Amino acid sequence: MSEYLPGLAGVPATKSNISDINGEKGLLSYRGYPIEQLAEKSTFEETTLLMLDGKLPTRAALTEFDSKLRRNRRTQYHIRDLMKTFPPSGHPMDMLQTAVASLGMFYPVQQHLTQKNAENLDYIHDMTVKIIARMGTIVAMWEHIRHGYDPIEPRADLNYAQNFLYMFNGKEPDPLMARIMDVCLILHAEHTINASTFSVLVTGSTLPSPYSVIAAAIGTLSGPLHGGANEKVLSMLREIGSPEKAEAYVDKKLAKKEKIWGMGHREYKTKDPRAVILEKLVDEYMKARGSNINPLFEIARAVEKVCEARLAHKGVYANVDFYSGILYHEMGIPADQFTAIFAIARSTGWLAHWREQMADNRIFRPTQVYTGEPPRNYVPIEIR
Amino acid sequence: MSEYLPGLAGVPATKSNISDINGEKGLLSYRGYPIEQLAEKSTFEETTLLMLDGKLPTRAALTEFDSKLRRNRRTQYHIRDLMKTFPPSGHPMDMLQTAVASLGMFYPVQQHLTQKNAENLDYIHDMTVKIIARMGTIVAMWEHIRHGYDPIEPRADLNYAQNFLYMFNGKEPDPLMARIMDVCLILHAEHTINASTFSVLVTGSTLPSPYSVIAAAIGTLSGPLHGGANEKVLSMLREIGSPEKAEAYVDKKLAKKEKIWGMGHREYKTKDPRAVILEKLVDEYMKARGSNINPLFEIARAVEKVCEARLAHKGVYANVDFYSGILYHEMGIPADQFTAIFAIARSTGWLAHWREQMADNRIFRPTQVYTGEPPRNYVPIEIR
Repeated sequence: MSEYLPGLAGVPATKSNISDINGEKGLLSYRGYPIEQLAEKSTFEETTLLMLDGKLPTRAALTEFDSKLRRNRRTQYHIRDLMKTFPPSGHPMDMLQTAVASLGMFYPVQQHLTQKNAENLDYIHDMTVKIIARMGTIVAMWEHIRHGYDPIEPRADLNYAQNFLYMFNGKEPDPLMARIMDVCLILHAEHTINASTFSVLVTGSTLPSPYSVIAAAIGTLSGPLHGGANEKVLSMLREIGSPEKAEAYVDKKLAKKEKIWGMGHREYKTKDPRAVILEKLVDEYMKARGSNINPLFEIARAVEKVCEARLAHKGVYANVDFYSGILYHEMGIPADQFTAIFAIARSTGWLAHWREQMADNRIFRPTQVYTGEPPRNYVPIEIR
Repeated sequence: MSEYLPGLAGVPATKSNISDINGEKGLLSYRGYPIEQLAEKSTFEETTLLMLDGKLPTRAALTEFDSKLRRNRRTQYHIRDLMKTFPPSGHPMDMLQTAVASLGMFYPVQQHLTQKNAENLDYIHDMTVKIIARMGTIVAMWEHIRHGYDPIEPRADLNYAQNFLYMFNGKEPDPLMARIMDVCLILHAEHTINASTFSVLVTGSTLPSPYSVIAAAIGTLSGPLHGGANEKVLSMLREIGSPEKAEAYVDKKLAKKEKIWGMGHREYKTKDPRAVILEKLVDEYMKARGSNINPLFEIARAVEKVCEARLAHKGVYANVDFYSGILYHEMGIPADQFTAIFAIARSTGWLAHWREQMADNRIFRPTQVYTGEPPRNYVPIEIR
């Protein structure tokens, strides 16, 4: 028997072609393409298809995929009626797990996977498109339903990021904002075998419907040790209150050996490549807005500057969560929805891993180190 | 880096005190107590508390626990209203995953776990009781709601097994049936680190609400490689049609190297100890019923006899699924609800493992063997 390693740290749990991290050099690639190039030149739709199929699509393939995504944005009114029974206080991640699990009832899978026929590509592709398309719809619907309003119907003339912001806010986003959302979706789409992606493999390995698999992954992402850091960055910036207070705040936290939210990442010894990209977008955004800038950006900049001076030599830099929260806030998205947006983006990576798992499935059944009692006899309750 | 073993077969993923299997000798114990003794002398309620606390409870502790279970059988009418929006064709496992996930919205957790304070026993015990109590309620409610009827209110004067059958069928079960259900719940409550229990550890390790964790496990159990075998046993027996056809059926299947449902278990080289117990109950039941016996039992007996002659030397015997399906059928439970009943029983083991994980939590983040493309440059769509 192998050695027991808590959390399976360092234990390979799958072979995968999808993404790769080089933590020493600060590199992240999807299917071999550096994340910087995808963020600059690709779109969420194209990156999604790349991740699923393993190659950059032709124009015809991309158009077909994008059209199918647009067609599947609508959901049955039954889903809306279901969501209206949720309490308005329901957290968006609990809502999302519930609604995605319910899709298995409303859209029953036509074809159950079997061990011999797990790699049914047409079926897998079809389910994948339907789930990715509906993730954005459901998250945006909840924003209206929880406030007592009917949701806004999706529009087929907008791309994924534009349509999501349109459905969320009820108005078309400006082009820079829509592009920033598009890049945020690309950056969050995949990150090798993290806890939620691993739960896709474990749950998927018994061959349930993909709705059940993605619902499991949403539950895993909902834990505070996984999703939710960008929400905490935002609270931290509000707590700091103004740029000139950043230095004292950071130093106080460091003296108490407390965490600065949005700083450092266990995978990267250098700067998180996704943070580098987001930082450039923040620059671009701030230049475009000029004096209309939200003060939180100025505070964030000040915090990052202090952290760089204090922590860069330890390999601790701003990570992907540091700026995304403020950007989402700027797009009119409330903080409790941030992890749900993460889930929309990550559904792409989850489903790419699900497809990969189906191509060579083996049920997960690790062992345990039994540390309990040896065999003993039952004792009647009278003499315990 | 450790060796890559598909499905993590043989890789220890946790240390656990809860249950132990000796596959060579055909032994299963919960907290050291042989399953045979628990099936004969304990109850589902007592076994549950044993599994959670690690020791057989005093009478006072058991009474308190049982009263709390009984009090928590009721659910808000909001849950009923939610379930009425589900399509009547919704599979009970999809229904159960959806409904349990929704509990996180209706009963928001008062106290979120943190890495430093994951082992908050009062909170964990409270959530555990609430979930176990409501699992039976939800499964029974759906049986009525999906047929267009209001569910039956739980009764606090019945034990778990009795109340479940009462809520399911609308009438009190006879004492032998209630006892058989009680034993079935004990037998299915726990079985070390199978796929669904492993998904509890993986999802739970990010510290989401236990509703999200159990919803993930329900999704994992819903896959045909995990739950559902007893449903297939029932179909098989119906296909065979009469006891005298059993021999020819089995021989034909074996000649084609096809699976006989309900026979053999990867963990046991000898007879599944749970099947031995169920077989005795079937005997008892058949004697009590005399000539009123369902013909499926006679067919099952004939199949088992042929299989014993043909397969016993290979260590293939009837497993826990072989008789449970016919017994559930005899209790008036439709076949598509069998896995949901498995989930009710197993919620006990899932939550015991969740509690154990919380006492020494580490987020699951295994690694991958990257087998994909090396770094390459993005190619514009025009020249692909």
